[in-house]
Amino acid sequence: MPEYRTDPLSGHTVIIAPERQSRPGAFSFPPWKGETVDCPFCRGKESETPQEICVHPADAASSEWQIRVVPNKYPALSGQSREGRDSQCADIATGLHEVIIESPNHVTSVTELGDEQLAALLRVYAERITAAEKQPGIRCAQLFKNHGPAAGATLQHTRSQLIAMDRIPDALRRELSAVDDHFANSGSCIVCDLIDQEQSLGDRIVLENDDFLAFCPYASRLPYEMRLVPRIHRARFENTNPEHWQSLASLLRQVLQTLESLIPNVCYNYLIHSLPFDTDRNEHYHWHMEIIPRIATPAGFEWGTGLFMNPMPPEQAASELRSS
Amino acid sequence: MPEYRTDPLSGHTVIIAPERQSRPGAFSFPPWKGETVDCPFCRGKESETPQEICVHPADAASSEWQIRVVPNKYPALSGQSREGRDSQCADIATGLHEVIIESPNHVTSVTELGDEQLAALLRVYAERITAAEKQPGIRCAQLFKNHGPAAGATLQHTRSQLIAMDRIPDALRRELSAVDDHFANSGSCIVCDLIDQEQSLGDRIVLENDDFLAFCPYASRLPYEMRLVPRIHRARFENTNPEHWQSLASLLRQVLQTLESLIPNVCYNYLIHSLPFDTDRNEHYHWHMEIIPRIATPAGFEWGTGLFMNPMPPEQAASELRSS
Repeated sequence: MPEYRTDPLSGHTVIIAPERQSRPGAFSFPPWKGETVDCPFCRGKESETPQEICVHPADAASSEWQIRVVPNKYPALSGQSREGRDSQCADIATGLHEVIIESPNHVTSVTELGDEQLAALLRVYAERITAAEKQPGIRCAQLFKNHGPAAGATLQHTRSQLIAMDRIPDALRRELSAVDDHFANSGSCIVCDLIDQEQSLGDRIVLENDDFLAFCPYASRLPYEMRLVPRIHRARFENTNPEHWQSLASLLRQVLQTLESLIPNVCYNYLIHSLPFDTDRNEHYHWHMEIIPRIATPAGFEWGTGLFMNPMPPEQAASELRSS
Repeated sequence: MPEYRTDPLSGHTVIIAPERQSRPGAFSFPPWKGETVDCPFCRGKESETPQEICVHPADAASSEWQIRVVPNKYPALSGQSREGRDSQCADIATGLHEVIIESPNHVTSVTELGDEQLAALLRVYAERITAAEKQPGIRCAQLFKNHGPAAGATLQHTRSQLIAMDRIPDALRRELSAVDDHFANSGSCIVCDLIDQEQSLGDRIVLENDDFLAFCPYASRLPYEMRLVPRIHRARFENTNPEHWQSLASLLRQVLQTLESLIPNVCYNYLIHSLPFDTDRNEHYHWHMEIIPRIATPAGFEWGTGLFMNPMPPEQAASELRSS
């Protein structure tokens, strides 16, 4: 029977409708087509992107970088600060928009990186978020990856993006408010409580290690959606215990590999929700990562209602991912 | 300069970022592939869909229908009513899910229908919404169309869907609350005021006639997004003045044809927002139709923040649509 479920953290509601699983054409992706030569992100093509902000390793010679961060050539936000502008003019969106190139080679998935390279990448994420925090007027940073054409990627070379903003966006604001309400009511962190609940139920857990847990959320919007959380309460991704990067890299690679092996040519987004910068309250926030396979296109119903219709119960999704 | 804009009706915020217009691959759709024979919606294949709920004309012989309404074979909601069920069990989503087959022939776009057939279709929409209202426990109905694969359509034959629900979904609830607030503050209808504003500015208007207006909303989420509204204040689509169906059909066909000629193989959703059934308040609501071309995929940023990044200012979109 189709059922409503509401996510306690984001507040979104879904209809889990397993009856729709037999629809023709569900759960498949066409092979990607794209550039194999003339990729602007490959080593040797540095002149085709804006001047780099930094590289990893930090002291690497220009032909030796492993990770390279450049400003987005088509920025979503203006780099110009608000200072001195006419307050009557349009509400200009200011901030940073960076591209994090994850390999010097023409690698098309983050799962092809070694665990050490992937751990280094996560540290670069943290460094870029920390660097954004130091910019005047920046209030929060959204780190995300678009993997494959159905996830909004226009080129194949594996990379992520950081958009740092002068405001706290609605989705994060709703989470902050749910976190506050939960703490006021129960004296505990909503995500810590979710972790306890998922552990005790077990049927939505995909993979876990000593430090992190990956599960399919109770109110998954799309089939095989996953949430990845640190077991230890921590408000900010960028403050992750340095000893834990390797363990996070390992879990992330495993869950993405599982997804890729279950669904050939899968397209997905992943994104990190971390506590905004200028809030002294709300250390009760608990950072998390969301992995959103772009299976099933939100259609007229979703656009009209804000509800998501998901034909795959997360309990079934987790079971398939576990045994894949 | 990128700028934030917030829609006064739905409350969503967008970043209008024209700097991103030169991104490679923007604004194009691949040719559709799909069935040309063995379509279950063509006349003569009636046995491949569930038994019809009704046809148009109402007294048409079984081989003479022009429009045919059937239950969705893969329903998003359970037809079973809540009565008598254990209140402790899962929050079952009950309601109706119907498919409105818009032509007996293998027509792939609603714009290929004659104006008379299109007006008849709009009347069928109204009749199905009115029929849903009479079902016990149904609180509102979402009428929508998925046109093309990027808009979530799995088959080509032109059709729409109606999902009638036992609750008022979040998106509609937010609109109702914006309508209430606006009326409390100004004593007027928010959409009537929007119409006045759009008329006086003029630069976002796409097309208009005596009874209806089509414009690109100030906070358009996607390029060429349009909103279609009746000039006369009316809370419910289904209560449209019978003399106006022809005029609505004509405007709708023209704006969709314009979109199709500007963007070959365009995929879009359209949907109707009408006042929910069981509310005696809020006759201040003003029904409207949204047309959402599925240009540019919401990606990691949109999923993470709830903000939409739109490279096409609606003023430019309207100008291109007007001169197309």
